[in-house]
Amino acid sequence: MKVYGCAISTSTQRILACLYEKQLDFEFVAVDIEVAGPASNNNDTFLSLKPFRCLPILQDDDINMFGSRAISNYLFNCYGNRMDVEIKKKKMATELTWLEMESKSFDPPASSLIFHTFYKPMLRMIVPNKSVVLGLESSLSKVLDVYDAQLAHCTYLTGDEFSLVDINHLPILHLIMACNAKNLVQCRPNVFRWALLILARPCWVKVLEAIDNGITHNYSFLLSIFNQN
Amino acid sequence: MKVYGCAISTSTQRILACLYEKQLDFEFVAVDIEVAGPASNNNDTFLSLKPFRCLPILQDDDINMFGSRAISNYLFNCYGNRMDVEIKKKKMATELTWLEMESKSFDPPASSLIFHTFYKPMLRMIVPNKSVVLGLESSLSKVLDVYDAQLAHCTYLTGDEFSLVDINHLPILHLIMACNAKNLVQCRPNVFRWALLILARPCWVKVLEAIDNGITHNYSFLLSIFNQN
Repeated sequence: MKVYGCAISTSTQRILACLYEKQLDFEFVAVDIEVAGPASNNNDTFLSLKPFRCLPILQDDDINMFGSRAISNYLFNCYGNRMDVEIKKKKMATELTWLEMESKSFDPPASSLIFHTFYKPMLRMIVPNKSVVLGLESSLSKVLDVYDAQLAHCTYLTGDEFSLVDINHLPILHLIMACNAKNLVQCRPNVFRWALLILARPCWVKVLEAIDNGITHNYSFLLSIFNQN
Repeated sequence: MKVYGCAISTSTQRILACLYEKQLDFEFVAVDIEVAGPASNNNDTFLSLKPFRCLPILQDDDINMFGSRAISNYLFNCYGNRMDVEIKKKKMATELTWLEMESKSFDPPASSLIFHTFYKPMLRMIVPNKSVVLGLESSLSKVLDVYDAQLAHCTYLTGDEFSLVDINHLPILHLIMACNAKNLVQCRPNVFRWALLILARPCWVKVLEAIDNGITHNYSFLLSIFNQN
């Protein structure tokens, strides 16, 4: 199994967390961020694998996949013990519902907030627009209110078992906890408990170690900035 | 099985297309668009089912789901003959990949384009900003180029079998074909062939008939505008 990606990108981290959670062997191919962008450089083999020019890519025998949530869903459901038991409708219904909520409700305001308050200052881009930030915080707060209510009666978002839904939150949640927006998490007791619990999950600790240990050796510049935070 | 929704919304149409494709019995509960919005009116039972205040909602025995792509995935995979056969990894990988591409690459520019060029003039909102429209057309064109290449060697997006991926495209694709953006489809021969093929699918014809036959009787105003186009 081979993953083409950029380990400081949250999309790639989502896949890595799945691979570590499932204890799957894989080879990581660090892709140059310049080539991964809107590329003029078309001669790399991996470019033919990604029609939308997006990373990461998973190669599993003759299977090529792109789209980080598609890949994490595939890895989580096709490997390990979940394929051995009958897929229960109720469990599937709950997971699919919260998978879409992460993608459509949590991720848009949370990712934008990270971009405006974390990456923009880090990359010395223009200072964040306060009204934009306030608007995003307000959107994210509404989502986290729903999460807090859900987490009042279960350990993880879909019940008392760690699931793909929790995994999909890890990369952005990690960044949220590294900037001012962490207040939005800390002031909601159930969300805060859940955040600390899933961010301490061995698979996520291994993702952070992998970044530190040079899985992204060709991004030393960006990595050095990243580690200052 | 019960669906709470607004039949002129593309999210609800996605679920209806799945229900008709799988020939499942269901009761449709038309929800007042005012209540479905950012509601002050909290006394309806259905409001307790939708923490993110989004429609549609599916109730299947004791299962409550929200998020239209989650619901369509559930209906498509939990009912009919697909649960009787072993889920093949390769098929799952292909479908998941294209499901995410629809959600993350096709839907954002296509939905925005529909909003700016179709709904805004229809609802007598300010005229569309030309540079915004051009930008969206450019984004959608890049996506459709990838689709055209994919559809050069298969009938449907994931192969020679109609899949949930095709279903998820129907509501927005139908609107695209009803406005100027249809040129973006017509100039790509494989996309055009695919669009005509899936829009003629009996499940989609039934969705349109259901709208015409008053499934949305309490949206007569919006419906009357809709039908003029």
